[in-house]
Amino acid sequence: MKTPTLPDHKYLQIADGIESLINTDVLRIGDKLPSVRTLAEDYNISTGTAFQAYYHLEGKGLIESRPKSGYYVRFNYKRFPALPKSVQPDAHRHAVSVKDVIADIYSDIAAAIKWNFARAVPDLSLLPTSKLNKAVVHTLRHHKDHGIGYEHTQGNPELRKQIAKLAFNWGGKVKPEEVVVTNGCLEAITTCLKAVTNPGDTVAVECPAYFGVYQAIESLGLKAVEISSCPVSGLDLQCLEKTLKKFSIKAVLCVPNFNNPLGSCMPDANKKALVSLITKHKIPLIEDDIYGELYFGKNRPKTCKHFDKEGWVMHCSSLSKSLAPGYRIGWVLPGKFFTEVAQLKRIQNISSPTLTQAAVAHFLQHGRYEYHLKNLRKALHTQCLRYSGSVIEHFPPDTKISRPQGGFVLWVELPGNVDVFRLRSDAVKQGIAVVPGKIFSASCDYENCLRISFGKLWNEDVDVGLKLLGDLVKKATK
Amino acid sequence: MKTPTLPDHKYLQIADGIESLINTDVLRIGDKLPSVRTLAEDYNISTGTAFQAYYHLEGKGLIESRPKSGYYVRFNYKRFPALPKSVQPDAHRHAVSVKDVIADIYSDIAAAIKWNFARAVPDLSLLPTSKLNKAVVHTLRHHKDHGIGYEHTQGNPELRKQIAKLAFNWGGKVKPEEVVVTNGCLEAITTCLKAVTNPGDTVAVECPAYFGVYQAIESLGLKAVEISSCPVSGLDLQCLEKTLKKFSIKAVLCVPNFNNPLGSCMPDANKKALVSLITKHKIPLIEDDIYGELYFGKNRPKTCKHFDKEGWVMHCSSLSKSLAPGYRIGWVLPGKFFTEVAQLKRIQNISSPTLTQAAVAHFLQHGRYEYHLKNLRKALHTQCLRYSGSVIEHFPPDTKISRPQGGFVLWVELPGNVDVFRLRSDAVKQGIAVVPGKIFSASCDYENCLRISFGKLWNEDVDVGLKLLGDLVKKATK
Repeated sequence: MKTPTLPDHKYLQIADGIESLINTDVLRIGDKLPSVRTLAEDYNISTGTAFQAYYHLEGKGLIESRPKSGYYVRFNYKRFPALPKSVQPDAHRHAVSVKDVIADIYSDIAAAIKWNFARAVPDLSLLPTSKLNKAVVHTLRHHKDHGIGYEHTQGNPELRKQIAKLAFNWGGKVKPEEVVVTNGCLEAITTCLKAVTNPGDTVAVECPAYFGVYQAIESLGLKAVEISSCPVSGLDLQCLEKTLKKFSIKAVLCVPNFNNPLGSCMPDANKKALVSLITKHKIPLIEDDIYGELYFGKNRPKTCKHFDKEGWVMHCSSLSKSLAPGYRIGWVLPGKFFTEVAQLKRIQNISSPTLTQAAVAHFLQHGRYEYHLKNLRKALHTQCLRYSGSVIEHFPPDTKISRPQGGFVLWVELPGNVDVFRLRSDAVKQGIAVVPGKIFSASCDYENCLRISFGKLWNEDVDVGLKLLGDLVKKATK
Repeated sequence: MKTPTLPDHKYLQIADGIESLINTDVLRIGDKLPSVRTLAEDYNISTGTAFQAYYHLEGKGLIESRPKSGYYVRFNYKRFPALPKSVQPDAHRHAVSVKDVIADIYSDIAAAIKWNFARAVPDLSLLPTSKLNKAVVHTLRHHKDHGIGYEHTQGNPELRKQIAKLAFNWGGKVKPEEVVVTNGCLEAITTCLKAVTNPGDTVAVECPAYFGVYQAIESLGLKAVEISSCPVSGLDLQCLEKTLKKFSIKAVLCVPNFNNPLGSCMPDANKKALVSLITKHKIPLIEDDIYGELYFGKNRPKTCKHFDKEGWVMHCSSLSKSLAPGYRIGWVLPGKFFTEVAQLKRIQNISSPTLTQAAVAHFLQHGRYEYHLKNLRKALHTQCLRYSGSVIEHFPPDTKISRPQGGFVLWVELPGNVDVFRLRSDAVKQGIAVVPGKIFSASCDYENCLRISFGKLWNEDVDVGLKLLGDLVKKATK
C-alpha cells in the first residue's frame, strides 16, 4: 500500500527541468538563462510562475541574478569534489570507550557558539511552531484529563494509530498495537539493544555511525564489530556476511536511510538482501529510520521493516529531527521482541508524557505533518546545496564531501593529516562548533573528517562562518 | 534553613482539638458533641466557623450528624486493629523474577475496572488541572522556542532552581547545578542503580518494597538482599548492618518517608544513623522520597540527603504522585555520582521534554505548588481515615492494617491463609483491582497481604467497592 505523492507545483516542474539541464551540462556555469518573459512564453506560464522557478533555483544556489542583466548558471553538481573515503574497519571486536570525548564536546557546545554546525537539528524557524501550539491548547481543552494522568505504557492510542498510518509512506503494514512510543529515537534504540543482548555480547554496527549509538553500546557493556559503509549506498553487505560468520553477533545496528554522518541511502534491493541475511542467521536488526522522511528525491525510500516477514527487524524512529526535538517523541516497532521492549519501557520510566503525545497525535490526525514535511524537505535540500557550495568554495581544493540524499548533515574529509580534534578547539574559540570524525567509529581512522550539520537556516552569515572554518582548515593543512 | 509553615485556619485548630479529645477517649464513640451554637460561644467563633470544624471532622469519618439531633462521635483511632506483620527476610541473595507476575497484573488492570484500588495515583480531581493548563499556555506563548527545541540534558534551569528551593522543605541545601531532571522517579532510580552497579552485583533493598524497584533490579541483572522493614519506623538498621558485613553490597535502596506499601516513616534519628552507616561502608544509598511532601502530620519529615555530608546519598523524587503523573517529571540529586548519572541520562534519551518542564517550572515559581500541597495533604489524610474505616468495617475482624503517616496506600494483612492471587482474580471479575502482597518481595511470604490505594476520591460508592472486596475476603477466609 502506498499513499499517492502530491503533485508538485508548476514552478517546481519548470525548475526541475532547468536543474537537469544544468546537471547534464546542457547549460554550463556562466551561461545566461532565458529572460523571465521568454521563459513564461516558452512554457505558457505566467511571469509570476517563471519568477518563482528562478527564485527557487537561486535559493538552491544553482543560478544567480546579475543586476540589470538577468539570471546566470552559478553552480553545477559536477563541481562537487570526490567522495570521502570508505574505510575498511579492522574486523575485531572492540570494547567501546567514547563517553569522555563526547562529554568534552558537549561541554564545548555550551560555550559561546555563534555558528553551531555541530547539532543535527532542523532550524526552529523550519518547524510549525504555531500549529503545534494550537494542538497543545486543543489537548489541554479536550483531553479527558488534560494530559495530567498517566498514559498507557505503550503510548497514546491515537498517536500509535497515526504512526501506523505514517508507515504507509514506506509501504509498511503496521497495526497500532505493534507500536511502543518512547522518549525519542535514542531511547527506542537503547531499549531494543537491551531487549536482545546481555552484557559482554557483541553487536555489529555500520561504520561510521552516530556516536550516540556507541555510547549506548558502551553503557550496556557490549562489544562492537564495525561494518564498513559506503558514502552512497550504505552498509557493505559482504562485509556484514563475513562478520556474521566470524563472530557470534547478537544484533545488527544500521541507519539505512540517510545515515548520520554519511547521508548515504541503501538501495531498496540491498535492504531486502540485508533482511534475508539477518533472517537467515536469526539475528535482530535494529533499524534507525529517524531521517527516512527527510528525502530530497521524489519518493520516500523503503525501510528494512518493509521487507521483514518474520519480525526480526526492530524499526526505530522519531519526530525529533522532523517536527519537535523537545517533545521527545520516538517509537519502535519491535517485531517479535514486542513483549521484551514494552516491558523494558515500563521498567525504565512507566510511560512517556501524556500531553505532548496527545498534542502530536492531534497534529498528525489533521494531516498537518505531511504538509509540513513537504516544505521541510525542500528547505533542507536547498540548504544542503548551499552549505555544500560554501564548503567547496572556502575549503582547500582537495577537500572531499558527501552527497547527502536526505537528512541534514554533511561529511567532510579534509586533505592531508589535519588533526580535527585540535581544529575543533580552535574553531570553538572563534564561535564555531563542528563534530570531529573520530567519534563516529571505535576502530577507524576518521581523524581528518568532520561532520557539518546544515540544519541551521542558510544565510550570508552562515557563509561567513563556513569561510572562517575554511580558513582554519587551510591554516591547519599548510 | 526552613520555610515557615503556614498557620492553619481557625476551624482546623478547633477540629484538631476535638480530634485529640476523641483520640484520648475523653470523647467516646457515640458521645454527643456540643451544638454548633454552643461550640461557637465556647470558642468565641462564628457559627460558620463552628460548622466548618464539624464538617471537617465529618469528612474525616470521625463524627457523624444525626438528623434533628446533632453531631456524634463515630470513630476513634483506637478502633484500629493490629499492625501487619514485620517479616524477617531470609538473608540470602536472590535473583529477582517478578516481571511475568507484574505483566499479568497490568493486563488485568486494563480490563473493565470500576474500583481501581491498585493504582497508586491521586484522584485527578485533587490535582490543579486548570492552573497547570495556564502554565502550559504561558509557556507556549513566552518560552523562547515554545518548548519545541531540545532542553539541556540536566533539565530546564528554572525547574532545577525550583527543585533546589523545594529542598528547603526538608532542610536541604541544594544548588540547581546538582539536579538532574528525569522522566519520573522510576527513571531516576534505574539511572542511579545503573550508575553504581555492574551486572551480577548485589544490592540491599528494604522489604516489602515497591515492585517497580524489583523490576529495575531484575532488568539490570542485579541480585537483591532484602532488609526487613517495620510498618511504623521503616528500614531495620541492625538487619542492614549485618547484611553489609555479610555481603558485598553495591547500593542500598530505601523509601524513608511513607514507604510504599507500608506507609512507614523512618524517624529522623534513624535516617541519620543510616547515612552514617552507608558513609562508613562507602556504599551509595538510593533514597526514594517521592511521597515525602504528602505527610499527614504537622511537618515535613527530613530526608536522608539532609544528613549526607559526603555525597553518598542519591536522592530521587518526582511530581508524579503530587502534581501531574502524566508530565513524567522526576529528578535526582546524585551527590558524588553526578557525572555518571548525567551521562547516563544523555545516553538513554538525551533530555526530558522541554514544554512540560518549562510549564511546571512556571507553576512552581509562582508558589502554586505549596498551596496545592496543603489541600492535597488534607484530602489524602481524610481519605486515608475513610478507607481505613471502611476496611475495618467490611473486612473480617482479625484483619490487620497499616497506619500510613503520609502517601496514599494501605497495607492490609488478611487473617488465615488467604491466597490473595486467587482473591485478586475474583475481585477483577467484580470490577475491583488491588495489588497482591506477594510482588512486594522476592523472598518474603506476603501471600495473605494486599495493597489498597486510597488515591481515588472517597465516596459512598468506594465504600460499596470495599464492602464487595470485604465480602470476597470473608468468603476466602471461611
